[in-house]
Amino acid sequence: MAKVDLNADLGESFGAYTLGMDAEVLRYISSANIACGFHAGDPLVMQKTVALAKSASTAIGAHPGFPDLMGFGRRNMTITAQEAKAYIKYQVGALWAFAKAEGLKLQHVKPHGAFYNMAAKDEKLAAAICEGIFEVDPELIVLGLAGSAHITAAEKVGLRCASEVFADRGYMDDGTLVPRSMPGAMIHDKDEAIERTVRMVKQGCVETISGKIIPIKADSICVHGDNPDAVGFVRNIREKLIAEGVAVVPIAEVIQA
Amino acid sequence: MAKVDLNADLGESFGAYTLGMDAEVLRYISSANIACGFHAGDPLVMQKTVALAKSASTAIGAHPGFPDLMGFGRRNMTITAQEAKAYIKYQVGALWAFAKAEGLKLQHVKPHGAFYNMAAKDEKLAAAICEGIFEVDPELIVLGLAGSAHITAAEKVGLRCASEVFADRGYMDDGTLVPRSMPGAMIHDKDEAIERTVRMVKQGCVETISGKIIPIKADSICVHGDNPDAVGFVRNIREKLIAEGVAVVPIAEVIQA
Amino acid sequence: MAKVDLNADLGESFGAYTLGMDAEVLRYISSANIACGFHAGDPLVMQKTVALAKSASTAIGAHPGFPDLMGFGRRNMTITAQEAKAYIKYQVGALWAFAKAEGLKLQHVKPHGAFYNMAAKDEKLAAAICEGIFEVDPELIVLGLAGSAHITAAEKVGLRCASEVFADRGYMDDGTLVPRSMPGAMIHDKDEAIERTVRMVKQGCVETISGKIIPIKADSICVHGDNPDAVGFVRNIREKLIAEGVAVVPIAEVIQA
Amino acid sequence: MAKVDLNADLGESFGAYTLGMDAEVLRYISSANIACGFHAGDPLVMQKTVALAKSASTAIGAHPGFPDLMGFGRRNMTITAQEAKAYIKYQVGALWAFAKAEGLKLQHVKPHGAFYNMAAKDEKLAAAICEGIFEVDPELIVLGLAGSAHITAAEKVGLRCASEVFADRGYMDDGTLVPRSMPGAMIHDKDEAIERTVRMVKQGCVETISGKIIPIKADSICVHGDNPDAVGFVRNIREKLIAEGVAVVPIAEVIQA
Repeated sequence: MAKVDLNADLGESFGAYTLGMDAEVLRYISSANIACGFHAGDPLVMQKTVALAKSASTAIGAHPGFPDLMGFGRRNMTITAQEAKAYIKYQVGALWAFAKAEGLKLQHVKPHGAFYNMAAKDEKLAAAICEGIFEVDPELIVLGLAGSAHITAAEKVGLRCASEVFADRGYMDDGTLVPRSMPGAMIHDKDEAIERTVRMVKQGCVETISGKIIPIKADSICVHGDNPDAVGFVRNIREKLIAEGVAVVPIAEVIQA
Repeated sequence: MAKVDLNADLGESFGAYTLGMDAEVLRYISSANIACGFHAGDPLVMQKTVALAKSASTAIGAHPGFPDLMGFGRRNMTITAQEAKAYIKYQVGALWAFAKAEGLKLQHVKPHGAFYNMAAKDEKLAAAICEGIFEVDPELIVLGLAGSAHITAAEKVGLRCASEVFADRGYMDDGTLVPRSMPGAMIHDKDEAIERTVRMVKQGCVETISGKIIPIKADSICVHGDNPDAVGFVRNIREKLIAEGVAVVPIAEVIQA
Repeated sequence: MAKVDLNADLGESFGAYTLGMDAEVLRYISSANIACGFHAGDPLVMQKTVALAKSASTAIGAHPGFPDLMGFGRRNMTITAQEAKAYIKYQVGALWAFAKAEGLKLQHVKPHGAFYNMAAKDEKLAAAICEGIFEVDPELIVLGLAGSAHITAAEKVGLRCASEVFADRGYMDDGTLVPRSMPGAMIHDKDEAIERTVRMVKQGCVETISGKIIPIKADSICVHGDNPDAVGFVRNIREKLIAEGVAVVPIAEVIQA
Repeated sequence: MAKVDLNADLGESFGAYTLGMDAEVLRYISSANIACGFHAGDPLVMQKTVALAKSASTAIGAHPGFPDLMGFGRRNMTITAQEAKAYIKYQVGALWAFAKAEGLKLQHVKPHGAFYNMAAKDEKLAAAICEGIFEVDPELIVLGLAGSAHITAAEKVGLRCASEVFADRGYMDDGTLVPRSMPGAMIHDKDEAIERTVRMVKQGCVETISGKIIPIKADSICVHGDNPDAVGFVRNIREKLIAEGVAVVPIAEVIQA
């Protein structure tokens, strides 16, 4: 039976600022990426988010970002490999404490925003991230862009890894995402996005921007819980997957032999 | 045989800023309190400091502070009990990751500056700190001001705890420190400071500012590594303790039955 | 003719986080307090907020806070007088630049949250704040709690000042606000709140929690734009004031001879 | 008579952290670039540094950086033009307040570290920086890398500008600096560095890494005050320039017709 994970970023509130419909989106996802205080999240938010995910029985992972709250971790920063490794350890450890306090284990690590995007292309950065994760806990699963340097680095380091795909993004012939500045970057039609997702999961392929069909590994689908529309889309994608005979389960179950 | 721990704050550098003679003071202390990124320290500094302590075979603990880098965690902040608990978990977890990566365990937790001082007097804050520590790891030892609310809270929560004394501070008749604004707050004469310390450790008592002799529990002595003079003082105090037949050992060994 | 100012806190968004219905509340207020990046606000938000206030022809002032984004500047911090003075200068200057770029002048300064509350009681802190403002621009008006140490300090330093009252807060017999922990702290009935406000403005007095009538100076009324209800209340209070023959004008016009 | 400015970065301390021998280097330089709280500096440090520069009668300018204290502003960040403009305004305004309080005017603006380096090459970023400066105060002088996009942008916006050269750096045939990763990036011999500097100032040319002689505009020389050696070098370079008949004067005097 086909299996896939639905993952979303949670715990992105900070202090007096609230962001994301965490409780709502938790009803439909199988893995939650929890912000760790660098690009978003604070200790109180992390504590609440871990407890919320626990009550929803959703698997949790760390969502470490660049130390750039003002830019929400979306701006490239030329950090060194040593810095990347240390930032990963720090943030994974911080979230680990809240998980430990709730009797939970961290399932995975997915870097956020620019950290994720840079790791997909930069081998040294990807290696540093994966080494950092491995040194803290070799049981952690790396969640990275399907077909990217990040996945290769995880395998090299000896970590389990899961390939992530995007329901609402166009793909280039080489399997990379169509840059947001180009036409075709976004799949605006929701039904089309869902059809593409089902195909990626069940058939292991996707139609690129040029019309070519290429293979793609879809262990986990990235979804969002920013607004009611986004949450509605998550519910729809989940229902459609199940209707198509696909089991929606946490990353760890998807990738086990 | 009498035993005591010598503890100092380490890893207080940040980014381009260097603070403290960590490598030097590590030669004389038995427990290192490592800053966790809130009042001082950053991930790279924490990584280096844990490695440095490991190479010196010195026991390590977390030194969590208020989120106030600009004030070095020395300014009182009216945080709630929930915030205190979450700040403790976050910082202990962050340091845990670096210890884990080096194959080390955290021995203790000592809050920093205003966090420490407030915890010594405020029962609710002290309880929150100790609960946070307990939830992350009930094996951790609390290092707090001898005779303070912090120690009482640790016992109530079920954590092991160690009582800290100060070589260079005057004591009131009730066992609290003479406020820095009062005469007699500091013991400026180094020989006198060392004599007082030896007495606290071996006889379990100290002469207060009024000349009274009161009992005091001295599991660990707070020392500093900010400058060559301070480091020299640590070496002297260590040598004198050993000459007096006192073993200088990590907190965990001091407090074991 | 009676005159009064309606002031609200604006520009409290930060990075990816949005807070407050700035555009809506700007339609009803006469003075905007703009956050300066310490407790809330960032340079981009400040730029947009100043432009927005300009388009609404609303007078603007600086709303400096403690360096505590995580606590939204609502937590007391024991900063020194020198620090307070420097924090005021820094934040007033930062906002000044955006005003200057738009061809605007800053009208006033109102500290935020815990900074405001502490300044109302702590003479030294209040003096430091007012000296900082005076040194940057002696034409700036201080907006502080009616009858507080903050107002006294402003007068002593030689700054013009405006007394602020709260529509929805109860008052003690000595003119201070009923602490939020006590019953009677909040006036929950909106009509009652508006009636009280009109009385403060037109008759210069308010009924305290004990039923006594005491004099109060009401140059400016603090209102909020956090949610649709709050904005509706601002519209109501403005309409009622105008219906009662009170002119709603910026602070500078209220306090001119 | 030949004239040149000597500029150094000052006010880079932060909270409990001290960096730079500000008082010493102020004896030899003619313009001080003062950090504004993003990459370094805090309000208290800015206040002290402006007062110190005033007592030394040294011209002052803003030294705005990226919001990256952990990286000391040395890491590239892909900020937008709007963000760059707003960051410049904010920081220039913040420093302006301290200058105003001391009765001083800001002379110039020199972006820090990665902000400076990126502005030298990126026309859009350079334009945004210069527009931000112009909008706050069109009298401010831009201090940028000689021959760079930054200088071109300043001229286009209508700001006065000064071209900066480096005593201890090698130059490529196209006038750019030899990247630090290449041999020849640094001029290690101090006498050679001074000779090169004198030649740049008096003859308006420099020998490149390939041995070619190219024209270069040297309005201001970048020097450092991090350590005793650096300060000694500043004193030597100043003495040599004066001995060669070159007047060491603030930027504003160098570039006036």
